[in-house]
Amino acid sequence: MPSKDQWYAWFNGHMVPESEVRVPFRDRGFKFGDAAFDTTRTFNHQLFRVEEHVTRLFRSLAYLDIDPGVSAKKLIDVSEQLAAQNLHLVDPADDIWLTWRVSRGIDPSERTAWPDYPDRTLIVECRPLPFQTRGRLYRDGLDVIVPSIRRPAPDALSPRAKTQNYLTLVLGDLEAKRHNPDAVGLLLDTNGNLSEGRGSNLFLVHEGRLRTPKAQFVLPGISRATAIELAIAAGIDVADADLDLFDAHTADEAFITSTSFCICPIGTINGRQIGDSQVPGPMTKRLMDAYVALVGCDWVGQYLRYAK
Amino acid sequence: MPSKDQWYAWFNGHMVPESEVRVPFRDRGFKFGDAAFDTTRTFNHQLFRVEEHVTRLFRSLAYLDIDPGVSAKKLIDVSEQLAAQNLHLVDPADDIWLTWRVSRGIDPSERTAWPDYPDRTLIVECRPLPFQTRGRLYRDGLDVIVPSIRRPAPDALSPRAKTQNYLTLVLGDLEAKRHNPDAVGLLLDTNGNLSEGRGSNLFLVHEGRLRTPKAQFVLPGISRATAIELAIAAGIDVADADLDLFDAHTADEAFITSTSFCICPIGTINGRQIGDSQVPGPMTKRLMDAYVALVGCDWVGQYLRYAK
Amino acid sequence: MPSKDQWYAWFNGHMVPESEVRVPFRDRGFKFGDAAFDTTRTFNHQLFRVEEHVTRLFRSLAYLDIDPGVSAKKLIDVSEQLAAQNLHLVDPADDIWLTWRVSRGIDPSERTAWPDYPDRTLIVECRPLPFQTRGRLYRDGLDVIVPSIRRPAPDALSPRAKTQNYLTLVLGDLEAKRHNPDAVGLLLDTNGNLSEGRGSNLFLVHEGRLRTPKAQFVLPGISRATAIELAIAAGIDVADADLDLFDAHTADEAFITSTSFCICPIGTINGRQIGDSQVPGPMTKRLMDAYVALVGCDWVGQYLRYAK
Amino acid sequence: MPSKDQWYAWFNGHMVPESEVRVPFRDRGFKFGDAAFDTTRTFNHQLFRVEEHVTRLFRSLAYLDIDPGVSAKKLIDVSEQLAAQNLHLVDPADDIWLTWRVSRGIDPSERTAWPDYPDRTLIVECRPLPFQTRGRLYRDGLDVIVPSIRRPAPDALSPRAKTQNYLTLVLGDLEAKRHNPDAVGLLLDTNGNLSEGRGSNLFLVHEGRLRTPKAQFVLPGISRATAIELAIAAGIDVADADLDLFDAHTADEAFITSTSFCICPIGTINGRQIGDSQVPGPMTKRLMDAYVALVGCDWVGQYLRYAK
Amino acid sequence: MPSKDQWYAWFNGHMVPESEVRVPFRDRGFKFGDAAFDTTRTFNHQLFRVEEHVTRLFRSLAYLDIDPGVSAKKLIDVSEQLAAQNLHLVDPADDIWLTWRVSRGIDPSERTAWPDYPDRTLIVECRPLPFQTRGRLYRDGLDVIVPSIRRPAPDALSPRAKTQNYLTLVLGDLEAKRHNPDAVGLLLDTNGNLSEGRGSNLFLVHEGRLRTPKAQFVLPGISRATAIELAIAAGIDVADADLDLFDAHTADEAFITSTSFCICPIGTINGRQIGDSQVPGPMTKRLMDAYVALVGCDWVGQYLRYAK
Amino acid sequence: MPSKDQWYAWFNGHMVPESEVRVPFRDRGFKFGDAAFDTTRTFNHQLFRVEEHVTRLFRSLAYLDIDPGVSAKKLIDVSEQLAAQNLHLVDPADDIWLTWRVSRGIDPSERTAWPDYPDRTLIVECRPLPFQTRGRLYRDGLDVIVPSIRRPAPDALSPRAKTQNYLTLVLGDLEAKRHNPDAVGLLLDTNGNLSEGRGSNLFLVHEGRLRTPKAQFVLPGISRATAIELAIAAGIDVADADLDLFDAHTADEAFITSTSFCICPIGTINGRQIGDSQVPGPMTKRLMDAYVALVGCDWVGQYLRYAK
Repeated sequence: MPSKDQWYAWFNGHMVPESEVRVPFRDRGFKFGDAAFDTTRTFNHQLFRVEEHVTRLFRSLAYLDIDPGVSAKKLIDVSEQLAAQNLHLVDPADDIWLTWRVSRGIDPSERTAWPDYPDRTLIVECRPLPFQTRGRLYRDGLDVIVPSIRRPAPDALSPRAKTQNYLTLVLGDLEAKRHNPDAVGLLLDTNGNLSEGRGSNLFLVHEGRLRTPKAQFVLPGISRATAIELAIAAGIDVADADLDLFDAHTADEAFITSTSFCICPIGTINGRQIGDSQVPGPMTKRLMDAYVALVGCDWVGQYLRYAK
Repeated sequence: MPSKDQWYAWFNGHMVPESEVRVPFRDRGFKFGDAAFDTTRTFNHQLFRVEEHVTRLFRSLAYLDIDPGVSAKKLIDVSEQLAAQNLHLVDPADDIWLTWRVSRGIDPSERTAWPDYPDRTLIVECRPLPFQTRGRLYRDGLDVIVPSIRRPAPDALSPRAKTQNYLTLVLGDLEAKRHNPDAVGLLLDTNGNLSEGRGSNLFLVHEGRLRTPKAQFVLPGISRATAIELAIAAGIDVADADLDLFDAHTADEAFITSTSFCICPIGTINGRQIGDSQVPGPMTKRLMDAYVALVGCDWVGQYLRYAK
Repeated sequence: MPSKDQWYAWFNGHMVPESEVRVPFRDRGFKFGDAAFDTTRTFNHQLFRVEEHVTRLFRSLAYLDIDPGVSAKKLIDVSEQLAAQNLHLVDPADDIWLTWRVSRGIDPSERTAWPDYPDRTLIVECRPLPFQTRGRLYRDGLDVIVPSIRRPAPDALSPRAKTQNYLTLVLGDLEAKRHNPDAVGLLLDTNGNLSEGRGSNLFLVHEGRLRTPKAQFVLPGISRATAIELAIAAGIDVADADLDLFDAHTADEAFITSTSFCICPIGTINGRQIGDSQVPGPMTKRLMDAYVALVGCDWVGQYLRYAK
Repeated sequence: MPSKDQWYAWFNGHMVPESEVRVPFRDRGFKFGDAAFDTTRTFNHQLFRVEEHVTRLFRSLAYLDIDPGVSAKKLIDVSEQLAAQNLHLVDPADDIWLTWRVSRGIDPSERTAWPDYPDRTLIVECRPLPFQTRGRLYRDGLDVIVPSIRRPAPDALSPRAKTQNYLTLVLGDLEAKRHNPDAVGLLLDTNGNLSEGRGSNLFLVHEGRLRTPKAQFVLPGISRATAIELAIAAGIDVADADLDLFDAHTADEAFITSTSFCICPIGTINGRQIGDSQVPGPMTKRLMDAYVALVGCDWVGQYLRYAK
Repeated sequence: MPSKDQWYAWFNGHMVPESEVRVPFRDRGFKFGDAAFDTTRTFNHQLFRVEEHVTRLFRSLAYLDIDPGVSAKKLIDVSEQLAAQNLHLVDPADDIWLTWRVSRGIDPSERTAWPDYPDRTLIVECRPLPFQTRGRLYRDGLDVIVPSIRRPAPDALSPRAKTQNYLTLVLGDLEAKRHNPDAVGLLLDTNGNLSEGRGSNLFLVHEGRLRTPKAQFVLPGISRATAIELAIAAGIDVADADLDLFDAHTADEAFITSTSFCICPIGTINGRQIGDSQVPGPMTKRLMDAYVALVGCDWVGQYLRYAK
Repeated sequence: MPSKDQWYAWFNGHMVPESEVRVPFRDRGFKFGDAAFDTTRTFNHQLFRVEEHVTRLFRSLAYLDIDPGVSAKKLIDVSEQLAAQNLHLVDPADDIWLTWRVSRGIDPSERTAWPDYPDRTLIVECRPLPFQTRGRLYRDGLDVIVPSIRRPAPDALSPRAKTQNYLTLVLGDLEAKRHNPDAVGLLLDTNGNLSEGRGSNLFLVHEGRLRTPKAQFVLPGISRATAIELAIAAGIDVADADLDLFDAHTADEAFITSTSFCICPIGTINGRQIGDSQVPGPMTKRLMDAYVALVGCDWVGQYLRYAK
């Protein structure tokens, strides 16, 4: 019997302890990475922009031609319910991630051992946010390394779909961590422009202008969109653009955005310090403050608690 | 209790009924397709070139920097044992597939619900060969369609590693099947040359010369290697080369090779008949005969039994 | 003697029955496709934007370094005269196409058999519009297929010049029609972005925004420009952009524009339905209505008469 | 009535005076360059390798999916007959070109004015060889200029098919001639390698080794094949290869091959002298001699007669 | 002893006669071109936009990771002083160039012969402007030739850094001058778009719109920025864009900008006349006038004095 | 007066102490890196393959269109003389490098301060070999890192010419050393294949086969040629090939060749161990032994003396 302090997930229509969420190995999500996912987080125990995230998930599924078999509304309801079920497991001052995963399921010819398996695999799951391991980054800045491996071209697999084919991003991140275990990898795209890391978007600041890689070559993150909105509201000149290493090495400031990081200042790219090394730089700081104000939750403080 | 007629698999060190092979959803093989696999088949109930297949699997894993945690020898022993365990489930005149799958396992920070899970996921599994659905192809030839989606460039993810990131091949095949449900997709590579389909290699015949796409852009199949060996033994001029649609539309004969297909004649490419439409063409026929002789098993007959 | 119901054309300075417009086989327009052309149509028997079309023709000729040897004004006068000459041949409720063709003529060294041939070939010709064969498309939507063949890069031959080198577009369309005889081909450009079909431009709608492939990679159609103008007038967010298959498969609506189609809704791309399958979608409908109003001719009705 | 000294051609099944070979302007060969062609020449009034040329023509047509509607044998018979018909028009010491052209004909919907037109246009035609204008080149060497325009990539239109879409080669040649009216253009391919000019193949000599651009990126000329055969017979190390401007500027010798030129020495590339400026270089001379011997006709002398 | 009419330069901290500025051959600036530079000019003997130029120099150095070891302020002071020192050497009606050069200096392991050499090489130098040789261009227009050699891709070496690795631009210019000794080369970038020449930026005018190649692919010249500012001030529609040879051959006007040329009208591109051949065209003239007004110096007159 | 223990160089025709070899800053070799160079070394105080090196230097100069103004024979004589002049400065058991450098000299318009400067700059110079700093590498293997910056495409600047435009290689090496100060950078080419590092060629061993990147994308090193010759002599299957990171991560052994390194085993690529970590691997060892035998000098011992 699942203990009270076990995390629960929603698995093919049922709320079950996480340990029971085991996918038949014939599921195409496992065999081929033939699946899409999306992730949001809570602020003050409330899910952030859950509709935008589910809309983006459905867009990834449309690209893959996978029918989720469930309405957006239903998925959001389940998500709220699941978050509520799990949030008691973290410190009241902490928050959690919530992730949806939808695979194409098991091919009809391979269902012998699971004759009653549904037409697709659908999982909603939660995890504690990793405040402890990341606290230092908000004080010192993140080390970013550009590996030699590149994002596939959009005509091979669109980076705008958040699929479970993550090997290029995984290998890029491993390559970066071989050079510096604390670093994250940020890949060039097929044209040699900066694109994205495993789950994070890049922003660069030059003389008061804010730029981020073009949407065609990255997953257009909800946090990326949030940072752009905040910049617009603050009257900052912000746009997406083709950015390359010349931009990186001449930037005044740099930061990444992601669901969990929200905004995290970058300290170095390829071992070279960004700007005058103030972490965070003034525009980054301004946007971080605005982000905290927008979500009404001091996520910077959540991280910095752990920066020793 | 598993019934006697259930298929068994080897799952993280144990021989279990297939229905029990369920992968924790936090396994990176599921989350990211962060895994490699390889497949052989039996002829007359004997595994074919099992050492070459396991060597290739280990090469895929080396590229991904995944440690299988097991020796090739051990894996082969297990495979022989597993095949023996399952073969009674098919007709004595039939044969089976055997597949190895190795994922990077569960990240340490996500093992809470599976504290004792091993350091990687390792599965060996079997399936009956699909003789029934394919019988017609050996009589009429396979319809091949070249979709608009392309294989990623080798600097993004090497096609020589047989990984569980199969989405591009999956989407290419789905695109082809939208046009013709009986067709298979065969993708162009980043340079616009013909590369491969989901698990099959291409061969084209021009004026007695046999050509197949270059090894850097495809999974160098064991059956592809076998066909090349047989061609060399038969004194045929055979080589790998950059092949494009001009080659396809001017070919005298065309066929694919794969573990299960061995050699299957192609009838059309993009709806245009290959050569003078004899299926199989004379060189294809000669290589099919040599293949049957090599393995000592009439796999052509296995398929043709079902061509009605 | 030409019968009264014969179509006339303007051929190297003379108004002649169409059957007399035969080009010496040594004309470079025939030998090399070394020629440019452009096409407009009538609405209510009046030529549409004839000056824009002739200006575009002259731009194509400038790129090819072909001197038309005639002024735009003269060409327009001839066109009006020719249209008047032919319009009696179609139903009063129907309309016609009018096309200009200018080739580089016959090389001096090859004029032996035609010593008096002019310095270039210049043809103006008319044809009835194909309302009958297309009527169904306005009701059901057009099937678009993206073939594997691609548009040449602009550094090889600019797609912005409407030349008589149409083989890539022809082969792309034939490839599409092999899969579905009712479909039209729409090619990717050298970067893997959606470009254009044989004489038509693409538009996609996402969440109220209208996008069309960038002008550098397509023939910038007059109807494309018209649709953009109408969208601007209607306050719609419209722009050209790099669009790929992710955009296609996640679009709410899609349509093509062309001289004859004006605006025609797309039903499917690569066999996958666009949006929720309403044909035409609401923004498409709105632009079609505005187009009808602009030209003062119910061309939608002209087509739909034939949709049975 | 055609005069006795008029050139004849074979046009859709009839031997007619050249002045009567006029193609309906609605022929796709004219409208789209939707046609293929091939050319051979006579030596001592005998057609050279006519079977190879017709085979290559049929291969171009196969790529374009055009059915010539006639057998190779018939076409060769007609060609022999046509050559015989025309050869009396040139000096007994001169020779002629013979060219086949096959277009896709007139679309059914556009045949109104030519209701009885055949299903494709098929022309066989002859021309005198231009010995006079080229004589000087065999003494001084040809000036080759590499223009900025490039050959389309093979995935857009295969250069291996000799189609009537020649605009890129035409524009490249015009660009070269703007710089130097006596020069010919030789284009780079999509990878920046040297490919071919309008109807000619390139060969470079480095330290006794002979190289020519790879077959995938050029029309594999019959004269190119002849030069390769002759080199092999002479024990020369010959191969096709990726060649670029480094190869051009460090070559000891360079020459082109074409049906009419056979082998013509290159004097300069981009205004820089090849090797030590001996024209022809020793290996080029050796191959020219062997070519003369092979065909039993002193074509070098035919040209040099006119070098003043 | 340096004569009174010798030009002086600032060399590693000292004002010395130019003849004494000799760089140790082990300096990486010589061995590898491992250095950056920038150039301004005087108008009426005053340095133009010296701060912008020094800022751009520092940006180039940041990209190269070279520490100039001096503040921008110091460099500007030195520059003013050096200009004052040299200006008496030119006619009061003439002006001069001033150039900064910073190399990475001598590797520690190679300093044996120059043990006291500073940590980098820093040169500030002046030259008379070449009014005489260029006067004609302002009357007749500049001949621009697009060579076959291309600018490296930004992922190989960013063209936005003005480094002393100029070989591609040098070879492109030499190729152009082989065709026409009076011409300048203007290279295509890796995508086949027009980029820049040796030290000059391109502008094209189409129907009243002004366009210049995108900043990622060229050195973003200060004069280019000045021209853009002046265009904006004049209410002209101006933007950077991907421009190719179609744009060049259909342009109404074209000009280049550079520090010394300011704005110089283009007469021909690849031997083809721009627009209707008026030199300068009306928009070019308008911007030249505005430029003269801005800098308060009739630099057009400075050049035209020498146009005979 | 130069001390007796000063190194001498040959500078524009004169044997002078190294400290006097200072290049006018207006030399194009300094301003643009407009120069070529080449380097050999001594074994037992004898210059190695000096003719091959000078031939390659002349080939680089031919590509750049720089006239060295001196015969190969003269240059070799000077080199022998210069080596003799300097060798007494190193330990009898040590050896030296000898380098030629030829720049395009000073532009005529900039010679005011050096009116008598020759038409090009020509330097021959020597340096001690760095045995001390490299000794460890022969014991532990070299760490190779593949940076994100790439070699320019051959159509931008041929890597086969050894020019003084080394910035891409310099930046690649600096990027690598930022990650690991002991590592050397090895760049990918424009196609994503492994090319070369700053002055070194790569070799990989797979199952007894030896492969090295294709000559079009690298400087074809004399040591590379030597290793290939030795492999052929030893009956090893050796060839140049397109190699990528899949090849690197699945290699059994890897090594680099260079003039000074001769053959140096690689221990890691991107932090991942090559093969089973034996340094050197068996084939590498065999070729090192053969190299030592060929040159009759224990250069391995020269290095290992310093491995502590």
